[in-house]
Amino acid sequence: MTSPRVLYLQSGGPTAVVNASAQGVIEAARHAGVSLCAARHGLTGLRQGELLDLDTVPQRQWQQLSTLPGTCFGSSREMLPPYDSAPETWHQLRAVLRGAGIGTVLLNGGNGSMTTALRLTEFGQRLGYPLRVIGIPKTIDNDLVATHFSPGYPSAAKYLAASVRELALDVSSLGPGRVMLLETMGRNAGWLAAGCAAATRHPGDAPHLLLLPEVPYQPERLLDALDTCLRQHGHAVVVVAEGVRDDNGVLLAEQPYTPGSAFQQLGGAAQRVASYLTQQRGLHVHAAVADCLQRTARHLVSALDLRLAQAAGRTALEWALQEQSGVMVGLRPAQGKEHWEMAAVALADVADAERRLPASYIGADGFSVSPDFLDYLRPLLQGEDWPPFADGLPSYPSLQWPVLRWR
Amino acid sequence: MTSPRVLYLQSGGPTAVVNASAQGVIEAARHAGVSLCAARHGLTGLRQGELLDLDTVPQRQWQQLSTLPGTCFGSSREMLPPYDSAPETWHQLRAVLRGAGIGTVLLNGGNGSMTTALRLTEFGQRLGYPLRVIGIPKTIDNDLVATHFSPGYPSAAKYLAASVRELALDVSSLGPGRVMLLETMGRNAGWLAAGCAAATRHPGDAPHLLLLPEVPYQPERLLDALDTCLRQHGHAVVVVAEGVRDDNGVLLAEQPYTPGSAFQQLGGAAQRVASYLTQQRGLHVHAAVADCLQRTARHLVSALDLRLAQAAGRTALEWALQEQSGVMVGLRPAQGKEHWEMAAVALADVADAERRLPASYIGADGFSVSPDFLDYLRPLLQGEDWPPFADGLPSYPSLQWPVLRWR
Repeated sequence: MTSPRVLYLQSGGPTAVVNASAQGVIEAARHAGVSLCAARHGLTGLRQGELLDLDTVPQRQWQQLSTLPGTCFGSSREMLPPYDSAPETWHQLRAVLRGAGIGTVLLNGGNGSMTTALRLTEFGQRLGYPLRVIGIPKTIDNDLVATHFSPGYPSAAKYLAASVRELALDVSSLGPGRVMLLETMGRNAGWLAAGCAAATRHPGDAPHLLLLPEVPYQPERLLDALDTCLRQHGHAVVVVAEGVRDDNGVLLAEQPYTPGSAFQQLGGAAQRVASYLTQQRGLHVHAAVADCLQRTARHLVSALDLRLAQAAGRTALEWALQEQSGVMVGLRPAQGKEHWEMAAVALADVADAERRLPASYIGADGFSVSPDFLDYLRPLLQGEDWPPFADGLPSYPSLQWPVLRWR
Repeated sequence: MTSPRVLYLQSGGPTAVVNASAQGVIEAARHAGVSLCAARHGLTGLRQGELLDLDTVPQRQWQQLSTLPGTCFGSSREMLPPYDSAPETWHQLRAVLRGAGIGTVLLNGGNGSMTTALRLTEFGQRLGYPLRVIGIPKTIDNDLVATHFSPGYPSAAKYLAASVRELALDVSSLGPGRVMLLETMGRNAGWLAAGCAAATRHPGDAPHLLLLPEVPYQPERLLDALDTCLRQHGHAVVVVAEGVRDDNGVLLAEQPYTPGSAFQQLGGAAQRVASYLTQQRGLHVHAAVADCLQRTARHLVSALDLRLAQAAGRTALEWALQEQSGVMVGLRPAQGKEHWEMAAVALADVADAERRLPASYIGADGFSVSPDFLDYLRPLLQGEDWPPFADGLPSYPSLQWPVLRWR
């Protein structure tokens, strides 16, 4: 029999709706009368025993979580190494888990985090401390396999597509020959850049060209396509994925490496493209870099995304009570427009697997998406859910969480 | 007696609310039964005789204008040179104005545009073709003198401050030692960068440091201030104005010059600061560049800004009918919170004058704003005015305008 307390962890980069998943977890725990805690800054805080007591938090507080961007308990990019390479970390974690009486871990993260989740399922066999582990999907990159989408992606795509629509009206204002670049995140996967295509209502609408990580960047081809676009429309909106690579797989731009960082931060691709276009064509080029705005813009989320992020959190807790383990909550559209079902997906199938944009979602010219992709994308963006505003600005709650004294 | 038709021109960079001024002009013209036209792309289109007939546009069309970002008739950065340096341009313009029976010009623009407006008032004396000219203020830079604020600025500041609030929740999510930069526009004036300070509710809230164009950039001072900030808060949000200059007045960054462009485009300052911080401190730095998003984000405007942009347009037309000329519509807060009055300001006082952030609005440390500035700013951001949404995205109308056949 496993220990009764449930631990909820946030892992990896924030999204605009990850706290809705936290809210779903808390809601389900209250409903079931289960004891729930969280770790400050995910695995990092857990290792150090920094736990938060969610059992005494008043309902009026946790019910505000779905209006709050960022990660409400803090997150980290720390991953659990394999047992053989870091047994001391495993023992350190077991001491905290056992001390706090934690038998279930709900891990809210992307594909790297699901590898950590998978490793946590080995605690019984390796350390004689069985854990139930359920993954809750979360990544704006949308590169998790075995789920129709990852919560966080629809809201980021909505923010970007709305921005493209607004930038298009700006760039066409000042006459012909102007180019607007918008750099998106997404690392190796083009889902976010492709998501900008939702801005198009009529042929010729922005975005006119997408530079996707899945399609090798060939500057001369871009120039040709841009010349055609400027001839046809007078101006151009070009979306540049941060993870664009050349024919040899070399990134167009990356940030200087930060010592001690778990991974290489990207960014700067749009500025490279801007300089190239100005040099080659003398064009007037603007470059907007959405950077973290695309994952934190709670003021412009998809209501569907928010609702399903919350449902995924709720479902994870319910499954744990049903003694499931080693699975992630996968989202699947069911019959009927408004219906979604949650399908258990083996963590082993999700961990470290990366779903890039499939060829069938990329347009024949390599600078666009296919109608199939738009059919996939559009339902995900539906609905608005404004945060409360006060004094002209979104009013995000300042929430404090009581420390769990378990030592 | 001057010719009866009124011409409305948009000039310079777009704002999220400039089309509300256009709507105000049209509304007042309809109300007064005055014939109204516009030029495509402002002065550029006027020179070429490209006029649009606004008399036959149905009300349901022009009433959508306040929901549309960009410039509805197109704008340009072209300015009218002094008569002596370009008499042929003046004659070219007179031919169009006379041909179309235009006796009044309403020019919607910033300080450069007001110089053009002032020169247009010389048409009577120079060319024997008297024109009534009224300026309607418009610039996100807020650097027009003699008006409490310029329509467009409050909405841009609101977008930036909301973005800062959201970025702060993101950057604090992943643990200590992280820095988020946000680059703002504003050229030589720090109003937009300063506007980010509205995000602060409690001491210690973001933005933590502002790099203003009015304060010489001293990298070592920034490092010191940043070290203190990281010690106190763990993370930092730093706003970088595009127009930041060093002790010698040299811009931190500018875009490669575009041949034929009327002025030097700025941008890239945040990336410079990011590289410096990474080199000096090995910090994990993100840099978002709002670029044109801050002037086109109609989905997040200030309702007050929208209302007064519209009122300024309406007032300009009413003043022209009252035979005023050579003035710009200045906005002034009147007694009572909700009341504003329109004051006529001589174009000669406004043309090419630049209002930078006064010293009394800058904090003693040079990295912040004063309480007086916040008292100035906060009332300007009040109220929301969402555009219509459809299929999950802001639904901006596609408006076509009938050509005025005057030749």
